[in-house]
Amino acid sequence: MSKYWSDFVGGLEPYIPGEQPANTHLTKLNTNENPYPPSPAVMQAMNAAVNEDLRLYPPSNADQLKQTIAGYFQLTPSQVFVGNGSDEVLAHVFNGLFRQAQPILYPDISYSFYPVYCGLYDIEFSKVPLADDYSLDLGGYRRANGGIIFPNPNAPTGRLLGLEAIEALLQDNMDSVVVVDEAYIDFAAAGSSAVSLIDQYDNLLVVQTMSKSRSLAGMRIGYAMGSTVLIEGLERIKNSFNSYPLGHVQLAAAVASFNDPDYFESMREQVIASREWLVEELERLGFEVLPSAANFVLAQHSEFGGLDLTQSLRDKNIIIRHFNKPRLSEFLRITIGTPLQNKQLIDALGEIVN
Amino acid sequence: MSKYWSDFVGGLEPYIPGEQPANTHLTKLNTNENPYPPSPAVMQAMNAAVNEDLRLYPPSNADQLKQTIAGYFQLTPSQVFVGNGSDEVLAHVFNGLFRQAQPILYPDISYSFYPVYCGLYDIEFSKVPLADDYSLDLGGYRRANGGIIFPNPNAPTGRLLGLEAIEALLQDNMDSVVVVDEAYIDFAAAGSSAVSLIDQYDNLLVVQTMSKSRSLAGMRIGYAMGSTVLIEGLERIKNSFNSYPLGHVQLAAAVASFNDPDYFESMREQVIASREWLVEELERLGFEVLPSAANFVLAQHSEFGGLDLTQSLRDKNIIIRHFNKPRLSEFLRITIGTPLQNKQLIDALGEIVN
Repeated sequence: MSKYWSDFVGGLEPYIPGEQPANTHLTKLNTNENPYPPSPAVMQAMNAAVNEDLRLYPPSNADQLKQTIAGYFQLTPSQVFVGNGSDEVLAHVFNGLFRQAQPILYPDISYSFYPVYCGLYDIEFSKVPLADDYSLDLGGYRRANGGIIFPNPNAPTGRLLGLEAIEALLQDNMDSVVVVDEAYIDFAAAGSSAVSLIDQYDNLLVVQTMSKSRSLAGMRIGYAMGSTVLIEGLERIKNSFNSYPLGHVQLAAAVASFNDPDYFESMREQVIASREWLVEELERLGFEVLPSAANFVLAQHSEFGGLDLTQSLRDKNIIIRHFNKPRLSEFLRITIGTPLQNKQLIDALGEIVN
Repeated sequence: MSKYWSDFVGGLEPYIPGEQPANTHLTKLNTNENPYPPSPAVMQAMNAAVNEDLRLYPPSNADQLKQTIAGYFQLTPSQVFVGNGSDEVLAHVFNGLFRQAQPILYPDISYSFYPVYCGLYDIEFSKVPLADDYSLDLGGYRRANGGIIFPNPNAPTGRLLGLEAIEALLQDNMDSVVVVDEAYIDFAAAGSSAVSLIDQYDNLLVVQTMSKSRSLAGMRIGYAMGSTVLIEGLERIKNSFNSYPLGHVQLAAAVASFNDPDYFESMREQVIASREWLVEELERLGFEVLPSAANFVLAQHSEFGGLDLTQSLRDKNIIIRHFNKPRLSEFLRITIGTPLQNKQLIDALGEIVN
């Protein structure tokens, strides 16, 4: 702790992202990236944006992108907020909406950045344990709170909460904001997104990212959708933090992605098909796999421990993610790869467990 | 004020950026952008970064960029912090270094985002009036404080503070952080940057941007340089906010820019030469121009008011910036353009004032 730091800085426990190895010969199934590249139309739009206008500031309100997202989801632009990755969007959500008198609630097993944001913004929280089957325990959210947030599908479990349950949560919590963090929603069945509830519930905020289903993790583009009053609160924070969170090339990439729905749909279906294949093969090898609606699975073996399996796979040049945490330490979290990568993983696991 | 907002959100007074007009036929001299495009080598590197790897997260610590910046300024990578534009860097500075028991100090006339950050992070501040000639009044900073920040050259005055004066400030304030915000330093004489003092003063932080002298306002890249202890404080904030503030294309652009010093030097010299021409012409038209070391000038006319002149120029399709604030309202802030744009401005002003 330095005298030059603000007091709270020494107490922060920063987020630790998944490893980005320099060794490109590894089979990388550890950070839930899409195995397929971005749409050719996206890359074309990005190249077109690399021009002399880079000397100019981007449009600070990102009007064209907001209109594009609004059109795609049948909303108005004033119901859309955009940011430099959904992590930045979430940071503004915690700061702008979750600093309340009551503690916020989120599942004990969920995105590990949530407690970090609480540390950054001095927000009290209470973790609601998942049920024994790792699904969300709705009863645990029926208490006074300053807000609720959960990933859906949840991470790292992959389990999906249905729209009826989400609607019940919204009705039970009309005085606080319910944030559905849909980083992986595009890998669930069509119609699973809570976006369809926005016009009915002023207390609903849906956060999405272009990092997973749209293969743009390297471009940092996230967005939130909700009632105009929630979006206005976020805009006030954003305009007090950084007027231009998205540059010209990010804006061009994002607009082009939404304008190429065929490629998006095709990649999405391939990942879902690969997930189904992978689950079957893992079960054949003696793994129990939680039902996943995401581009990853959480699986545990009846005989081999999570840490041992992770290390054995690493020895075979395959990286998956292991969480050394209660209720998770026996599991492997495996990102869905290409069919070839998935086969490499299954072959390697077959050699280890057989 | 909505019940869904954190309490402080209703009281925020967000920053208002300069206008980015949709009408591209305007001569735009209002937001201090560089009149010249980025280096061809930068655009080439950006196009090369538009590839299949965009599906992957960028390196969260931006090691290659930090090494490049460190090499350029003869520092170590642990003395370098990078962010999504210097506005994001400054936001983390205010949060991570300036939340102290004593109020922070900054000039009454300076970057208008400073009070906005203070509002966002609940930081007390005291504004130190500029001297009558609009230079920094060093005596005003000899008092207990929680930190000091000023742009150098100052904005919107353009006036430069010399290194000896900066060193005196550092010595007078060894218990607090002194931030020199050098957004425009590359338009001053070589050797004006406080970077050369970093190895001697643990309490010095120098913030720079690629938006002005490097023609990359549209890419959002900023950085800070200082002692490892200050950088570590900023990293703790950044890693509690957004693990990946810079994407692949931003990183590629930034590295390529530092690796093309000839283009940078040439554009810098052209802007400085244009500034000298513009100052002479403005004086010929009856303007008083503050001595500027930036890519803009602050000028007032003996007979015509600032707001009237701004409107008259707008009628002639030229946008400059007017600040409706004490001590500034009689001035025009004019960004240095291309020689053609500068001539258009002088011709238009000539028609107005003659």
